[in-house]
Amino acid sequence: MAGLFITMEGIEGSGKSTQIRRLAARLTRLGIPVEVSKEPGGTPLCRELRQLLLEPHPSGETWCAKSELLLFYADRAQHLAQSVLPALEEGRMVLLDRFDDSTRAYQGAQGISDAVLDRIADLVLGRVRPNMTIVLDMDPAASLGRVEARNSAAGDFRETRFDNEHLAFHQRVRARFLAIAQKEPHRVVVVPAQDGPDAVEEAIWARLTPLLRTAGLPVE
Amino acid sequence: MAGLFITMEGIEGSGKSTQIRRLAARLTRLGIPVEVSKEPGGTPLCRELRQLLLEPHPSGETWCAKSELLLFYADRAQHLAQSVLPALEEGRMVLLDRFDDSTRAYQGAQGISDAVLDRIADLVLGRVRPNMTIVLDMDPAASLGRVEARNSAAGDFRETRFDNEHLAFHQRVRARFLAIAQKEPHRVVVVPAQDGPDAVEEAIWARLTPLLRTAGLPVE
Repeated sequence: MAGLFITMEGIEGSGKSTQIRRLAARLTRLGIPVEVSKEPGGTPLCRELRQLLLEPHPSGETWCAKSELLLFYADRAQHLAQSVLPALEEGRMVLLDRFDDSTRAYQGAQGISDAVLDRIADLVLGRVRPNMTIVLDMDPAASLGRVEARNSAAGDFRETRFDNEHLAFHQRVRARFLAIAQKEPHRVVVVPAQDGPDAVEEAIWARLTPLLRTAGLPVE
Repeated sequence: MAGLFITMEGIEGSGKSTQIRRLAARLTRLGIPVEVSKEPGGTPLCRELRQLLLEPHPSGETWCAKSELLLFYADRAQHLAQSVLPALEEGRMVLLDRFDDSTRAYQGAQGISDAVLDRIADLVLGRVRPNMTIVLDMDPAASLGRVEARNSAAGDFRETRFDNEHLAFHQRVRARFLAIAQKEPHRVVVVPAQDGPDAVEEAIWARLTPLLRTAGLPVE
């Protein structure tokens, strides 16, 4: 039987990395093998592409919106072909930090139309969809505060270039994640993320356990 | 008035670089400003992408066919937005070493369907088409011999990774270039390229001069 495909989504500072680490540890303790990866950057070539996508270039040149979209999907096609689909076909669970909904939320918020997003997603994903997508939801004003605190603690003033963009943009991204959840309630669950990490972990676990049980996997 | 958009196409070793250099010099001597560029790699970011596309990666990982296609079009979208379209809009002539027909010929010969190629080209090109495309046509057995001689003279055994692919592949690519020319005779001219560079230069010039005259440009 194919493995479960779980994706974690949300704006910067919503706690995705922390919760993915906790969820992976919990699954591992239960004896469930899980592969954790992220987009962009899930294979060696994709990591090079991630850098080209997200790091400022010495020339000052930035990608146009269409190129950016195509590069994100090139990353996704490669990650699926090289890593995600083979793992799922071998029955392993795959847990991703960002997937297609991030592109729909961020590139959509930058003005790429849903028609264009549908067309290219259809080309790259075909019939592939996550079994469950967890959207960690919180107010961008609070989540960007977390990112800022984390970066200045690390002596860095930027995590990704999205952090430099303004609050209104992140509000549009949040709204797009919530709209996706509303449109696809059977796939996407929204988990409030402003509470402490223990509370968020338990909320995620409560949403995930029915799916694990259905798949015949242990939940305690 | 918009500048003329000319693209040079053909398999490896067909003499594109030599003929572009000669054509640009000839236009410049006539006082016609021309911008010469190439795909992939026509801007600083695109040059990074070209390397990621064409150079072998230390990990041994290679791009899947879909990713490769998306990366070529990301390069094209960026090159158009940053460089080609602004030059044309300012009335300058643009001369490109490879453009969309190369993707259709090479990626098509690797198995990407025409329907997929049409869909993504429509997204990236919109209504943009070259005023004239010159296909330098010759037998791959001869052109690949040229590439091999050039590379071994340079102490290198590879120009691009396409050179490593077999003769049958290059024969399919050649057939696809010729099929495009047959389908779009008003845009695409086929120039036999097995003769010496002077003869090929004159053949190209004979095909180009009517277009230059129509655009009110000097031809001698």
